[in-house]
Amino acid sequence: MAIQAIEKYGPVEVVDPDDVADDAFVVSVAGMGAPVVMIEKLPSGKEAGEALLSLERYFGRRADYIISIEAGGMNSTIPIATAARFKRPLIDGDGMGRAFPELQMVTFHLVGVKATPMSMADEKGNSVILDTVDNFWAERIARAITVKFGGVAWIAIYPMSGKQFKAGAVRHSLSKEISIGQALREAKARGANPLDALLDATGGFLLFKGKIVDVLRRATGGFARGEARLEGLEEFKGSELIIRFQNENLVAIRDGTVIASVPDLITVVEKDSAKPITTERLKYGLRVAVIGIPCDPKWRTPKALKVVGPKYFGYDIDYVPIEEAVKRMGA
Amino acid sequence: MAIQAIEKYGPVEVVDPDDVADDAFVVSVAGMGAPVVMIEKLPSGKEAGEALLSLERYFGRRADYIISIEAGGMNSTIPIATAARFKRPLIDGDGMGRAFPELQMVTFHLVGVKATPMSMADEKGNSVILDTVDNFWAERIARAITVKFGGVAWIAIYPMSGKQFKAGAVRHSLSKEISIGQALREAKARGANPLDALLDATGGFLLFKGKIVDVLRRATGGFARGEARLEGLEEFKGSELIIRFQNENLVAIRDGTVIASVPDLITVVEKDSAKPITTERLKYGLRVAVIGIPCDPKWRTPKALKVVGPKYFGYDIDYVPIEEAVKRMGA
Repeated sequence: MAIQAIEKYGPVEVVDPDDVADDAFVVSVAGMGAPVVMIEKLPSGKEAGEALLSLERYFGRRADYIISIEAGGMNSTIPIATAARFKRPLIDGDGMGRAFPELQMVTFHLVGVKATPMSMADEKGNSVILDTVDNFWAERIARAITVKFGGVAWIAIYPMSGKQFKAGAVRHSLSKEISIGQALREAKARGANPLDALLDATGGFLLFKGKIVDVLRRATGGFARGEARLEGLEEFKGSELIIRFQNENLVAIRDGTVIASVPDLITVVEKDSAKPITTERLKYGLRVAVIGIPCDPKWRTPKALKVVGPKYFGYDIDYVPIEEAVKRMGA
Repeated sequence: MAIQAIEKYGPVEVVDPDDVADDAFVVSVAGMGAPVVMIEKLPSGKEAGEALLSLERYFGRRADYIISIEAGGMNSTIPIATAARFKRPLIDGDGMGRAFPELQMVTFHLVGVKATPMSMADEKGNSVILDTVDNFWAERIARAITVKFGGVAWIAIYPMSGKQFKAGAVRHSLSKEISIGQALREAKARGANPLDALLDATGGFLLFKGKIVDVLRRATGGFARGEARLEGLEEFKGSELIIRFQNENLVAIRDGTVIASVPDLITVVEKDSAKPITTERLKYGLRVAVIGIPCDPKWRTPKALKVVGPKYFGYDIDYVPIEEAVKRMGA
């Protein structure tokens, strides 16, 4: 969709956060719901734009910039398509530096930015404007609407000033995404190992190589929840890895021990090509590598861990930064 | 609440439908959800006003008139309180001539008026604006939000022109309510039987007298659903009546036979005083009379019966107007 939109409407202007004026009006656009539903009910590309226009009408102001609320999965590229179609510049930065499943799991939330007023649209033409007392209420109400919309909603959210963006954003995540893609492309061109290139480009740690032998998945409450079970390959032969997810991977458990958890990134890629496999694409038989990538430091404060740490998701474990966890495991 | 508001803010101007200009802006305010929740979570009186103001802000226009969407239960008097507090005149007419549980069950729906844009507010300060493709979608989405709001929402809905109001309304329902109250009061003053006065004033039929011996009630899906079982008293001794409800009474079954159903009114009152007992007040031991009252003729067309007839509510019976049903029963 992003490529098509750029081909049709021309390239997207990408702006450095430092070049954004304090009083600029910044809006994020995204899809909300279970990714497993989105890939069955493919968007036309217009829906996120409808949400944007609806929020602009509500404010009586055109967005000066649009942004990606997360750097991962569909929501890292939907805003590119919207930016191309509606000729809005995009800022090089996002609100997570990864992907998370709930609306309040955003670095802007940590600096007090409100998710609302937000708009929601579906593919049938229904639209909603929400204004809630806090971001948890935004999540709760928007999630119920998403379920009624059929499992997917298109949203424009976290309307904010340029000043708020600069205070809260994970900066240069778009540049980082581009550099990861370039590293993979160059490794392929050189005949080098793409997985090594990926680890280099991300500062990640190899947690496991294995074959997916089981995937449990339920689309429930407006999320895709489940777990994948992997049997070890190569140096991990004889080991087992379980990954639990809620839209995004939450914890990785190797032979009974949690070796990585939110907010660090647990990333599944094809073992040989290092191409990403998001949770909705996990399936029996895939041979994959699992890597752990340190999250943005903004997520590692006690306040942030209350919002996105393992305990929030129901795991009674303390968060151990991936660098330390890997050292402890001697992996 | 209505009495308090009038004492505090002064009387409410009531306007005849014929005196409403075609281009006037008319808005309805109401509570939505399970009445059984509303009586536990009493409104402060401001909530419906918040919904009104929020919809006015959305339209950028002050309502010229507010109306009751239904003539029964809380929603016949909430708009009086709102009219007093916000100094808006009230039109003598409503959208049902009775009460119904769902948003599309409104005479305005029958003449093509849209329920949306509508606003919703809760007591915490959350607010929502909905704009849906049709009135069934409005019901579906607003109901899910009502559940998340905690079972009750305050809404401003069916924004319309004076012309649409005059085309769709059940006229003079407020006058009728007043005349029923007067009839009861006068009967009491004269020492006459209030129940007879009520039957006279409403054109209703006595269906049953009995004692409530069982009430099943569940607050589910944003409604209060259930049934009440009554054992006959006086001339109905030896008979049993079952009333099934979804916020409002839907069917009355006497000794196994349906003797009244939506869209006609099934009204439960205290047997001796003829004071109304709404579904949320039904309880073991009350001695009641049950009366059937013909609904407004607008509800008796085939098109209207699809919206509010017994089949819509899951009863596989044909609607028989109460006058005819009573004749058939020889009651």
